[in-house]
Amino acid sequence: MIVKLTVTYDGTNYCGWQVQPNKITVQEVIEKALLTLTGEKIKVIGSGRTDAGVHAEGQVAHFKREKENIPPEKFALALNIILPDDVKIVKSERADDDFSARRSAKRKTYVYRTYVSTAILPLKDRYALQLEKQPDVSAMKECAKLIEGEHDFKAFCSSGTSVKTTVRTVYSIDIEERGNEIIFSVTGNGFLYNMVRIIVGTLLAVGRGKIGKKEVEDMLATGKRALGGKTIPAKGLTLLSVEY
Amino acid sequence: MIVKLTVTYDGTNYCGWQVQPNKITVQEVIEKALLTLTGEKIKVIGSGRTDAGVHAEGQVAHFKREKENIPPEKFALALNIILPDDVKIVKSERADDDFSARRSAKRKTYVYRTYVSTAILPLKDRYALQLEKQPDVSAMKECAKLIEGEHDFKAFCSSGTSVKTTVRTVYSIDIEERGNEIIFSVTGNGFLYNMVRIIVGTLLAVGRGKIGKKEVEDMLATGKRALGGKTIPAKGLTLLSVEY
Repeated sequence: MIVKLTVTYDGTNYCGWQVQPNKITVQEVIEKALLTLTGEKIKVIGSGRTDAGVHAEGQVAHFKREKENIPPEKFALALNIILPDDVKIVKSERADDDFSARRSAKRKTYVYRTYVSTAILPLKDRYALQLEKQPDVSAMKECAKLIEGEHDFKAFCSSGTSVKTTVRTVYSIDIEERGNEIIFSVTGNGFLYNMVRIIVGTLLAVGRGKIGKKEVEDMLATGKRALGGKTIPAKGLTLLSVEY
Repeated sequence: MIVKLTVTYDGTNYCGWQVQPNKITVQEVIEKALLTLTGEKIKVIGSGRTDAGVHAEGQVAHFKREKENIPPEKFALALNIILPDDVKIVKSERADDDFSARRSAKRKTYVYRTYVSTAILPLKDRYALQLEKQPDVSAMKECAKLIEGEHDFKAFCSSGTSVKTTVRTVYSIDIEERGNEIIFSVTGNGFLYNMVRIIVGTLLAVGRGKIGKKEVEDMLATGKRALGGKTIPAKGLTLLSVEY
């Protein structure tokens, strides 16, 4: 049977999702918990990697298991007893035999949180990026519209991964002001390495007046990473949900 | 001159506000930062204590200083360079000569955050209490109305402090549902030791059907602490603001 897991984690203390030698990752702690629970070495496949320090409310993963002695919906409760407090299973359920958390994923939504304050705000800073000055939100919204749609996102990708194509579709970029917070929600059919952090970093450069519509259009047209804003820190980024 | 400070902190790693021997407190780290900045031993007076693990968005404090070589509004920026990341000054300003953060305080608002989930949610759990089952919010709202007003709050107070009177006025208790969160906001003219945590703990006992209106009325009438709910954990509690 295939078991689908919806996973939430505070990524602060993890080297991302995917198992890496000599580093603690979220995938690894879930696989270890499954080993403790079942006595079996079970490989867990995530919808995609999240980088070191990135959080998740609704990462999705699956694993395959022959035995049916544990009902699929009971894995959440049983694994949560074993898992550390910063990684928890929100839901476990049986999926179709051809379900793959990675290959079947249709849309993902990431949220990037920022707050405007001259001082670091300790109660926000663990999960959000401090902006010392109020950015121009309407300029950011205007440039966000340029990024929406199907494009070659080569300029919005850090080097270091080999992918067949850098064409992706961004369905929406919403920018919401809530008190002193500015929250970016980005939904797409898939994301390249650091893509959300570069999109939001580029929009923040627009918000500070460092670059404008022309540079964003040129990034999409030429694929030149150097035209954009910085790759902003992982701590503000949360994988909100994966749709199938 | 009197300098008024508005202070925010993540209380997780502190033994509360007030200086105690052999324990790290928020007051102490601010006094140490003032010593580093000015070379002077300066006593900082808070609006009141917050307990170990309690957070603040808008704690207020003041100190007195003879020298005027640092303009009052510059203390925030200067102290924030010295202070650790979990304690920051949101604002510093000159106050009237008779201003006292403690004696002049008129109203305080505390927020207690909870979330409903069978699993611990790592991204909420640092600043909120997990409720495994949905409580009866309308029963809690009804009992909250009984607690509002001027009462002897002896039954809503942990032993261990000597106060002249246990009579206080609670101006309002608001209970707001926001997604899977239930947020309690309590405003009063002053609070006894653990009072907010006992009020919310008692309302949660009402929400679970363990006690009802009668027990809450009896608490107010008889002063018997044992009739109420548990003193719930500090981590969900934040001092939102102090008004003068």
